[in-house]
Amino acid sequence: MMTDELQFKIACAEDLPEIVRLLIQDQLGSTREVLTDPLPQVYLEAFEAMESQPGNDYIVGAINDRIVCCYQFTVIHGISRSGSSRAQIEGVRVDSSMRGQNIGKRLMADAIERAQANRCQLLQLTTDKSRPDAHRFYEGAGLTASHIGYKVDIT
Amino acid sequence: MMTDELQFKIACAEDLPEIVRLLIQDQLGSTREVLTDPLPQVYLEAFEAMESQPGNDYIVGAINDRIVCCYQFTVIHGISRSGSSRAQIEGVRVDSSMRGQNIGKRLMADAIERAQANRCQLLQLTTDKSRPDAHRFYEGAGLTASHIGYKVDIT
Repeated sequence: MMTDELQFKIACAEDLPEIVRLLIQDQLGSTREVLTDPLPQVYLEAFEAMESQPGNDYIVGAINDRIVCCYQFTVIHGISRSGSSRAQIEGVRVDSSMRGQNIGKRLMADAIERAQANRCQLLQLTTDKSRPDAHRFYEGAGLTASHIGYKVDIT
Repeated sequence: MMTDELQFKIACAEDLPEIVRLLIQDQLGSTREVLTDPLPQVYLEAFEAMESQPGNDYIVGAINDRIVCCYQFTVIHGISRSGSSRAQIEGVRVDSSMRGQNIGKRLMADAIERAQANRCQLLQLTTDKSRPDAHRFYEGAGLTASHIGYKVDIT
């Protein structure tokens, strides 16, 4: 499988099972996702909710129509930093059988291009402190670990 | 000025000068914002861009119509965590002349209520590593510093 044939596109609802397959491969994701056939209705509802928000998309990377990576790409317009727009990425995943082939690097390049095309001044993401491989990857990709990410479960 | 009269609402374009006034009071914000009368056009354009995104609002807190705090509140629908929606807050500011009156605490309570009303499962934010006061505040408010926040300037 030649990674130079890797193509990125905005996901459609039909790509959801593959996205969930990638999310569930992940150590943290394995406890958070449910992959059944058909897919639980919550994922379809979530995808529809995303479609109602301009600038909030899942992006999939495919080689010959086989999805090998994905990430969520969100444009957030804002007032601070003289009215800057930010691109935020979330849920970055590369198929575990496809590691070591620079797919993550290509994914980041796609995200930065997409952010620039959307006139964002900043690209941002957070990653769990328990993911040292991810930290090395993002630092290698030129991002700066300038912030602390806080979360609270409010269910 | 009685802080029990503090009321939160979604900001309108007329509130923009007060929002920029709060943003520019901040140490980091002072180098990033421009407060003139009339306000630079970029802020009005940014506000319009925010209005085009459902779920992306600036919130202001006012006491007797005087704006004393603000934050950006963004609902981000997503696929991961079984189709969870997140509330993200950004640009949290309390008027420097109004510190020590629990306004920040009331602001966080408003954000959490707003997140729950929007059926979000998670509230998240990042804060610059150089803001120790903010870290204490968010930890006191029950948030967990579970993540590292990466950013890259892509202008």
